[in-house]
Amino acid sequence: MDVHSASGASRVLIIGGGFGGLACARALAGSRADVTVVDRRNFHLFQPLLYQVASGGLSPANIAAPLRSIFRGRRNVRVLLGDVVGFDFTIRGARLADGGVVPFDIVVLAGGSRTHYFGLDATWEPLAPGLKTIEDATRIRCRVLGAFERAERSEDAEARAALLTFVVVGGGPTGVELAGAIRELSRDTLRREFRAIDPQAARIILVESGDRLLDAFAPDLSAAASRALERLGVEILWGTRVVEIESTGVVTRDAQGTTRRIAADTVIWAAGVRAGELGRRLADALARPEILDRSGRVGVDDRCQVPGVDGVYVIGDLAAFPAPGGRTLPGVAPVAMQQGDWVGRHIVRRMAGRPAAASFRYRDRGSMATIGRSHAVVQIGWLRLSGRVAWLLWLVVHVLALTQFENRLLVSLQWFWNYVTRNRSARLITDVPAASDGAACSRQ
Amino acid sequence: MDVHSASGASRVLIIGGGFGGLACARALAGSRADVTVVDRRNFHLFQPLLYQVASGGLSPANIAAPLRSIFRGRRNVRVLLGDVVGFDFTIRGARLADGGVVPFDIVVLAGGSRTHYFGLDATWEPLAPGLKTIEDATRIRCRVLGAFERAERSEDAEARAALLTFVVVGGGPTGVELAGAIRELSRDTLRREFRAIDPQAARIILVESGDRLLDAFAPDLSAAASRALERLGVEILWGTRVVEIESTGVVTRDAQGTTRRIAADTVIWAAGVRAGELGRRLADALARPEILDRSGRVGVDDRCQVPGVDGVYVIGDLAAFPAPGGRTLPGVAPVAMQQGDWVGRHIVRRMAGRPAAASFRYRDRGSMATIGRSHAVVQIGWLRLSGRVAWLLWLVVHVLALTQFENRLLVSLQWFWNYVTRNRSARLITDVPAASDGAACSRQ
Repeated sequence: MDVHSASGASRVLIIGGGFGGLACARALAGSRADVTVVDRRNFHLFQPLLYQVASGGLSPANIAAPLRSIFRGRRNVRVLLGDVVGFDFTIRGARLADGGVVPFDIVVLAGGSRTHYFGLDATWEPLAPGLKTIEDATRIRCRVLGAFERAERSEDAEARAALLTFVVVGGGPTGVELAGAIRELSRDTLRREFRAIDPQAARIILVESGDRLLDAFAPDLSAAASRALERLGVEILWGTRVVEIESTGVVTRDAQGTTRRIAADTVIWAAGVRAGELGRRLADALARPEILDRSGRVGVDDRCQVPGVDGVYVIGDLAAFPAPGGRTLPGVAPVAMQQGDWVGRHIVRRMAGRPAAASFRYRDRGSMATIGRSHAVVQIGWLRLSGRVAWLLWLVVHVLALTQFENRLLVSLQWFWNYVTRNRSARLITDVPAASDGAACSRQ
Repeated sequence: MDVHSASGASRVLIIGGGFGGLACARALAGSRADVTVVDRRNFHLFQPLLYQVASGGLSPANIAAPLRSIFRGRRNVRVLLGDVVGFDFTIRGARLADGGVVPFDIVVLAGGSRTHYFGLDATWEPLAPGLKTIEDATRIRCRVLGAFERAERSEDAEARAALLTFVVVGGGPTGVELAGAIRELSRDTLRREFRAIDPQAARIILVESGDRLLDAFAPDLSAAASRALERLGVEILWGTRVVEIESTGVVTRDAQGTTRRIAADTVIWAAGVRAGELGRRLADALARPEILDRSGRVGVDDRCQVPGVDGVYVIGDLAAFPAPGGRTLPGVAPVAMQQGDWVGRHIVRRMAGRPAAASFRYRDRGSMATIGRSHAVVQIGWLRLSGRVAWLLWLVVHVLALTQFENRLLVSLQWFWNYVTRNRSARLITDVPAASDGAACSRQ
């Protein structure tokens, strides 16, 4: 029996409302499929701009769109707030944390990835937050702003220096963008706002284990990015790994094996992600642990299907999709979106009884990353840009990519405002008990 | 010795960055005074629009302005993040929670008020949040949105009805505005977004102990407000008190003594505030408990000074300022702002050696409250307005009253957008552990 046309109108369950799940649900909206989107959160998050929330430039709602509002007019799409904790393939159902079961004919796993600390998650996570969720972003915002506040009140020069040292671990896009944003926060936004300290004296240290930043880019663009960051005043430690994170700083080891202690109150982790738990739950339900790769991703065929099971698709960061040269496609938004869209249209085609589509092919439309308020690197095919024009392109692409017209308007307006005034108005230290002195979101 | 001119340049400590403290610091900015503003939060909050954050129409940052950014260019004003837990008048210093001491010659207490549950705070507070802080607002937003989410998944008709029942206790401006906003959220914003439930069927019940709403207004405006609310579809229980709050609903008692149980998952408390702890801390330090009135406010003379102590001013919600007829001035923003401004200018005058100003006189410039998306009541002297014109006036006044030009722009834009589309984009269920199903911010 082909699940794609079991009853003429298949029940399609999409787990995850990120870039992949959203694209898949949109491709299925208006079709005969009976679509359910389950997510743990009630909104779709535009993760590429999360660092701007973390540095006080944008509000969380500016980069989030309620899933229900996205699918408001789509009668065949239903949204459920829920956490999928397991599968039962004898009844073809997904089990939710609260005990509920959502039945499906076809399931699309789009659970994304989470911050990964190389097996030291329990120890390092409380000390060095990653940047994957809205709460991560407000937590980092709270710690960074709180560090300046406590420095202003500190009488001890050494303590003050540690409070004004910010270590960002990992030189990928998140690390680069965050380091640049924190540097500008301290250099421009907070200028003249303190009386006892000079925020411009804050040190922002980017720790990179390799010899270049943004390794998805061409070497000359990587070099341009690191020059731009250093011009801003970010210190880059090359060929250096963080071997220990403590409540008072980090210990690094460089390529020569020399270890070094950096006293820093704020450490931010941008050095690795790993597939979420959903893959393991699928493997458990199928009793096939071999479908998972080392980083927890589910190996799929060239139609994003788990080989040997009918109607189970895995897309985005959760999938290990074969790419030329024995590699897999990178965990970036465009891959997830293209896969989601492709799988959605593939399901529609199968339901209509038409022949299966040819295999999914990823079209790399390029990469971009921004460094501070007027520099970016852009790589689109043979086109390589670095500098102000690249930054304008970055700006336009990111505004247009935002879900919901209102957010496009609000973000444009705030960026314009932030650019002209160098101010960042979303600088709230929130979610801390009232009597906290800004220390509550910090390390213990 | 007169503390106002102790050293030629008095150290003025202002505790609280709300409407009163802000106005006072602004009046002192640029003077010879050495001003310190201490607040537990790093932002000034525009509380009158907090209900719009609670109902998903605005983001927290839209109605908050970083205190440091407000005083950026004012070299004689310093901002400290800290929680004042006591005073020592032998050294004229304020003690902070973290052990620090801030010395002063003159101190202005502007600590504001907090939600009060008639002595049942510990029991009722977790069950029925009030609306005084950003966290209160995001908690209410999370509970209200979470209730709809859980109703969508509930199989039990009775449980669903309780999830779709929202009880707002107290018919003052906060209760009226919040009840109207939740009604519109359910009627307009969430329309067509759910598949199993009809959000329009949600019941919003406003419990009022007296026989009219908004008792600071003229009776005909109170009547207009209740008519407008009922037209929206809010049920009003007149002459009714909440005698018990449980995790499954409330028990009310009406004027005839009849008790009634209302099954409701969401209960919001807008029935009372009380002065914050700061007044008691002052009374303790002075060993003069008699300066406090029943609701914890500090009795002041007609210059906002605590009688018998030099250089101690109390303003805003924390002060019991004598008004004609043996009453005291109401705890509203205009009183706090006028007192803050007056005290600031009074201190400047005293420091300059000029004669003390005449006593503070409150100028009542009117009141306004809004009911839903196109109705308000406005009372300015002899002018009484109700309806759409009043609402436009409310809109203009509130936009202009916002601190920071950027917020004025962003709020205007979002209001325009929300008005046209009936959407509310700041509908995020956040600050809940990831695997929560929206229940984490709810009652246990």
